[in-house]
This record gives sequence, C-alpha cells and structure tokens, in this order.
Amino acid sequence: MSVLVMKFGGTSVATLDRIRRAAKRVGREVANGHDVIVIVSAMSGKTNELVGWVDEISPLYDAREYDTVVSSGEQVTAGLMALTLQEMGIPARSWLGWQVPLKTTSAHGAARIEEIPADNIAAKFAEGMKVAVVAGFQGVSPEGRITTLGRGGSDTTAVAFAAAFGAIRCDIYTDVDGVYTTDPRISPKARRLERIAFEEMLELASLGARVLQTRSVELAMRYNVRLRVLSSFGEYDEDAGTLVCPEEEIMESNVVAGVAYSRDEAKMTLISVADRPGIAAAIFCPLAEAGVNVDMIVQNIAEDGRTDMTFSCPVDQVKRAEKALQAAREAGDINYRALVADTEVAKVSVVGIGMRSHTGVAAKMFDVLARENINIRVITTSEIKISVLIERKYLELAVQALHDAFELEKAA
Amino acid sequence: MSVLVMKFGGTSVATLDRIRRAAKRVGREVANGHDVIVIVSAMSGKTNELVGWVDEISPLYDAREYDTVVSSGEQVTAGLMALTLQEMGIPARSWLGWQVPLKTTSAHGAARIEEIPADNIAAKFAEGMKVAVVAGFQGVSPEGRITTLGRGGSDTTAVAFAAAFGAIRCDIYTDVDGVYTTDPRISPKARRLERIAFEEMLELASLGARVLQTRSVELAMRYNVRLRVLSSFGEYDEDAGTLVCPEEEIMESNVVAGVAYSRDEAKMTLISVADRPGIAAAIFCPLAEAGVNVDMIVQNIAEDGRTDMTFSCPVDQVKRAEKALQAAREAGDINYRALVADTEVAKVSVVGIGMRSHTGVAAKMFDVLARENINIRVITTSEIKISVLIERKYLELAVQALHDAFELEKAA
Repeated sequence: MSVLVMKFGGTSVATLDRIRRAAKRVGREVANGHDVIVIVSAMSGKTNELVGWVDEISPLYDAREYDTVVSSGEQVTAGLMALTLQEMGIPARSWLGWQVPLKTTSAHGAARIEEIPADNIAAKFAEGMKVAVVAGFQGVSPEGRITTLGRGGSDTTAVAFAAAFGAIRCDIYTDVDGVYTTDPRISPKARRLERIAFEEMLELASLGARVLQTRSVELAMRYNVRLRVLSSFGEYDEDAGTLVCPEEEIMESNVVAGVAYSRDEAKMTLISVADRPGIAAAIFCPLAEAGVNVDMIVQNIAEDGRTDMTFSCPVDQVKRAEKALQAAREAGDINYRALVADTEVAKVSVVGIGMRSHTGVAAKMFDVLARENINIRVITTSEIKISVLIERKYLELAVQALHDAFELEKAA
Repeated sequence: MSVLVMKFGGTSVATLDRIRRAAKRVGREVANGHDVIVIVSAMSGKTNELVGWVDEISPLYDAREYDTVVSSGEQVTAGLMALTLQEMGIPARSWLGWQVPLKTTSAHGAARIEEIPADNIAAKFAEGMKVAVVAGFQGVSPEGRITTLGRGGSDTTAVAFAAAFGAIRCDIYTDVDGVYTTDPRISPKARRLERIAFEEMLELASLGARVLQTRSVELAMRYNVRLRVLSSFGEYDEDAGTLVCPEEEIMESNVVAGVAYSRDEAKMTLISVADRPGIAAAIFCPLAEAGVNVDMIVQNIAEDGRTDMTFSCPVDQVKRAEKALQAAREAGDINYRALVADTEVAKVSVVGIGMRSHTGVAAKMFDVLARENINIRVITTSEIKISVLIERKYLELAVQALHDAFELEKAA
C-alpha cells in the first residue's frame, strides 16, 4: 500500500467549509488507492491569537508553556479534520505529536525532530484506517512536554512523515498554485514551473520566494522526499502545482530556473581595516552575536596592509550592525577608518542547476544589466546561483530584463 | 507541606485580566505556605465554540475526536495561567491530563477517573515548584487518547486531585459567592451558609442550586475532601464562601438548611393500570430507555386489581414520555385507561440533616403551604429532604413562606 502525505496550511483550513474542501481532496486520494497521512496547521489567525496572549502576559515567556498554549491550534484542526473525513465515510483518526510520538529535542519553540516511529500509525493502516490526521508543528520532548518546531514547522512535519513512511510524495497545499520563474507581481510573464530541483528550490526559498520553508526543503532533499506545492483552491488536476524533486527527475530544463530578489537590503563597507589573519572573524563574530543576518561578503584586494570589507544585511538591521561594529572598535578588537552604509540597495539572483554545465550565464546576466544601465555594486556566486546588489529603484527593471533575456516564459 | 487545591471556572479565567486576578489569589495562598494545585477551566465561551464546530461537522460525532478538540480549551488556560504565575515570580508549570497522567476509562465525553498518580507532581513540589496548574475536565484513556469527563468535569478534577494529594481543602472559585438558603432572586432574605454538610449539598445541587455538580460533591463526600465554594470576584477573606464538609464539622445548625426548587416540572398520571408484580418496571424501563428523567414516583392504593401511577419529569420531556408509554401500550407491555399530563407544576423541597433528629418538619411544611392555600399534588420524602409538587404559579410564594417559617434568614 502506498502512503501519500498531504499537508494543509492555515488558509486551507481556515473555516469548516475549507476543511470540508480539503477533506474532499483527501477523499479523492484515498479513492486513488493511497493510505493518506494528512498534516494540518492551525486555522489561520488562531496561532496569532494564542501567541498574542502569551506575549501580552510575558515578553520573556517560558517556552515550554508557550508551546503548550500554541500547539492547541493544530490540535483543534486535527480533530475537526478527522471528524469531517469520518462524516464522509472515510475511516480516519487524529494523532497529536505526543501520541505518534513525534520525538523532538527539548529546544522549545524551535525543536528539532529526532524520531518518528511509524509503528502506531502503520498498525492502524493495517487495521483498515485510511487517513491519519496529524497535528503539524508539534512534538514531544524527552521530558514528556509538548514542543513546537518553529517557523514552517508544519511543512517540516509533513516532510518528516513522508520520510518516515517512505511516502510516494508529499503534497503541500497552500494559497499559491506553485513555484514561479519569478514574482508574477513584478513580471507578468512569470511562468509556473512544473518541476524544480531541490537545490534550486533552496536557493529560491532563501532568496524570498516564500512558498516553502528552507528547512523543509533541506529535509526533503536529505531524505529524497518528492514534494509537490499546489493550491488548495484550484480544481483537481494530476499535474497541478510544482514538483520539487531530485535533479535526476528533471529531464530537460532551462539553464536558469528562476529570477529571485530581495528588496530591502543594505550594503555596508568598512573602509581601511587592517589586512591581517583573523580580521574577518573579528568583524563578523560580533555581528552574528548581535543577531545581524549577514548575507554577501566581499573583501577588496589589500594595499599597504589595509583593505575594505563590504557586506550586505537586511536594511532594518543596519542600526544593530553599526552598534556592534562600533563596540568592537571601542574594545580594540577591530580598527577602521569609516563605516559607510548604503540602505538603498536590493538583491537580484538568477538560479538554475543548468549553470553547473553551461558557462556564460554570469556574463549574460552582467551584459543584460549593463544594457539597462544598471550599475552592479556587489557580486557573489555559487555553483547554481549568481547574485548582485543593485540600486533599489532598478529592481523591477532588472528582474523583468533578466526574465526576458533568459526566456523564462518558455518551458524547456 | 500542605497542599491546597484551587479551581477556577470559565468566567474566572475569561480574559487575561481575570487570569491575572485569579493568579493573585493563588499567589496569596503560596505566601500562606501552601503548595498549590490549580485546576483551570477553558476561558468562558471557548468550549461552546469548539463544541459548536464539532456539532456542525457531524451530529453523530466520534467522541474521541470530540474530546481531542474540546480539551484544547483547558490546555490553553493552563499554559496562560502558568505563564502569569511565573511572571509574578512564582515557580509554576502546567500539566495536561495525559502528562499527570490522570487516567480515566475509555468512555469518551463522560469518562470516569480511575487513578491520579501523585509522584510526578509531588517530585516537582519537592524540587521547589510552588504551583502545579492542571488542565481540568480532561484525562487520558488506556489507549492513550485524550478523554473528557463530561459536565462539571473541572470540579470533579479538582476534588479528585484534592483526594489524591490529601489536600487540606479544595477551593472552588466561581461566579457566585457561596451556597444560599434559597435562591436570592426569589427570596431577598436568602442567607449565605457558612457551612453545609455533603449530604445537604447533594440534595440542593440535584434540586437545582447549580453551584457544584453532584458528581464532584459525591466524590468529595467519599474521600472526605473539604470543599469551599466562593466567588473569584469578591475581596479576599478567610471566611468567604461556603464550606461543604462532613456533618461532624458542623457544630450547630438549623434543622432545615435550605429551600430548593425546580420550576419546570410536569406531573404525569397513568390512570387505571393493572396492579401486578412487574408493572413499575414495565412502565419505567421504556421511559428510561427513551431518556426521560423520572424524578418523583407515587403509586395509589389499588382497587379492584387496578391502580393509578403518577410520576414527575422535566416539562420538556413530556412528549418523549407520552410517545414511549404509547409504544409500550401498543406492544402490549402495559395497559392503562388514560394518560393525564399536568405541565403546570413545580417542585419545592426543604433540605436539612437536622431532619434526621428533629420530627415535625414535614407537618410544619404542609401547614405553611396550607395556610397559603397552596394545594400539594405529590409528596416524596427522604431522610433529609421533603419535596412537594405544587402549581407553578405558587412557586415564589411557597419558597418565601417556607424560608420565613423555618427562619432561614437567621444563622443557627
């Protein structure tokens, strides 16, 4: 018997009516012959309400109690979904994290999954149960307390169950109908991708295509879980959504899969720092401790034993970064002549596994931007991605020009 | 170290503000030197919302899923209360039913408590925890699923914990400030009782003084748990509320403790039924099966082998009773000439353990009603209670006259 995992996000279970629509999709997969594990989020708005109460009581809350309170949202949806399926005549029951048990670390609020024993649920499937409805986002610590998995926790729960049960696929139902070549709000030519490789999805997700949390894609890649992202509001269609899968399953693809962007970036440059071993650590350790998410880093060539160091970070972390560097200078850990912040930049990236075997992508990207008179401030590259910092006002122009130049509106 | 159990009902934890006020009361008892077990209900309105969803999905719901959904309300309050106490600097943590574990039968929706091992919570008290906040109303079945205890479940949880931990007392905080000699809305002379015996409370509770659920009083009596009912909205006062306690703790008391009533009763009479062995069973078994709550039963003396049988039930169950008796007649199980329903009656009762040793209470009651020209339709008596059915329009008059005649406005 093949197991299929289906995950429904908060907007997909926001009302009893939507739960019913989601349950119909589950029923169709049961009719297709699958044993189904359904992972549910809290009804949209519920988690925010619960978190709001906790925050109001105590800004420095006990994360164990936070988890006890917040996990109740998924508990409610799990029960309601099981009832809805039963009402449709489908043998179903709910499972809470501690009942599976989904064992996690004790890092409350951001716990990591340690183990999902399959035997309890598998035994019920063997007895004729067709659907196990599992409350997402939650587990149980070695101390027997409820834990939550942090942001994107329900996606992660879904992928982990798919891995534990050797599922044929993990379908993530959400409010978008798949992964696009770029943001359709910026380029009307944006096209839904039928398939995308794990690595590409990781780069797109971390760059701002907020469809799947990075963590769940990483987990899917590690355990080779085929993920499908699709809308819970569209018509049923075997080929709906986007399949996130191993590279080998993508027969033919464009060299570039998509153009991602991040609008609110800042570029900071430390002018004339001593070019000595350990200088990078001396600069970036205090930034990490201050919670600054440093993204791109570029070091100029040295001259007379001194160099310039440039990095980017989210624009709302500039103040924090300045304070941390100032403190490090006052403590004598680093020395620089000036700190220059440019808060008017944005990041544009082209991503594609085809770049591994095709040369000239970077050259073409730079050429396209040059033709549009867009000046590049910083460049970084990885095996399957090229990112540039540009002036923010050129962001839309750059994305559209790159999308056109790489002909992303056409399927491979 | 003495353990005190404090239970807060839904209105006492309806908002974060009220939770804070309840937490202050808990803090005061901690300062008094007690280890405190706090039992919380769901925030008022929450349980109804959850039950409403379940009912909307499926009128014939799976009680296991019902319990999963509905128990989430107490879970939220338990976490919020623990956080509030911590914020006040009091070492506290929440416990869900399955974490204690509060072991119950598998009768979902109306489970019975089987065992409350004290070791987990006792170990935390030994480590310095001052307050264990326990989600009321819920437990865990032998199959590892969440169960709920049914109506009044949180009161029952509180009493059961008091018994399991040998608590010095179980304080039930609610929205009334104690048990009264009668309903203050009917008699302005109604007086709050400082103490009342378990047996008296049982008779008053089942007669409509809806302060404590019968089940929790029964449990308290069986395990000799001293219960105090008091308002969570009044000022703190050592002598607040009403203490429900063993008879021996009540040194001196009025012969009659209170006058109870039930407004919406109906009197039904089967005229001319065969007076044969087994006739009562033949009449009342079908009524029980039909879910009719038969209260008083009176059988007339027989004449020529036939008799009249009268019983009372809630007025909204009359139709159901008629249908059940009709069906039994058609099946040939019983035989009667006519079925007469009087839906305009009410029940008035006087209750008091003093009646065991004092005679003349019944005579006085009948005399008082006669002086007011109130006709008695049916009389039943128990060791500590006399109940009569009267015309509904005389209800207020009867209660006031009895309260005056037995001088209940005066303390013993």
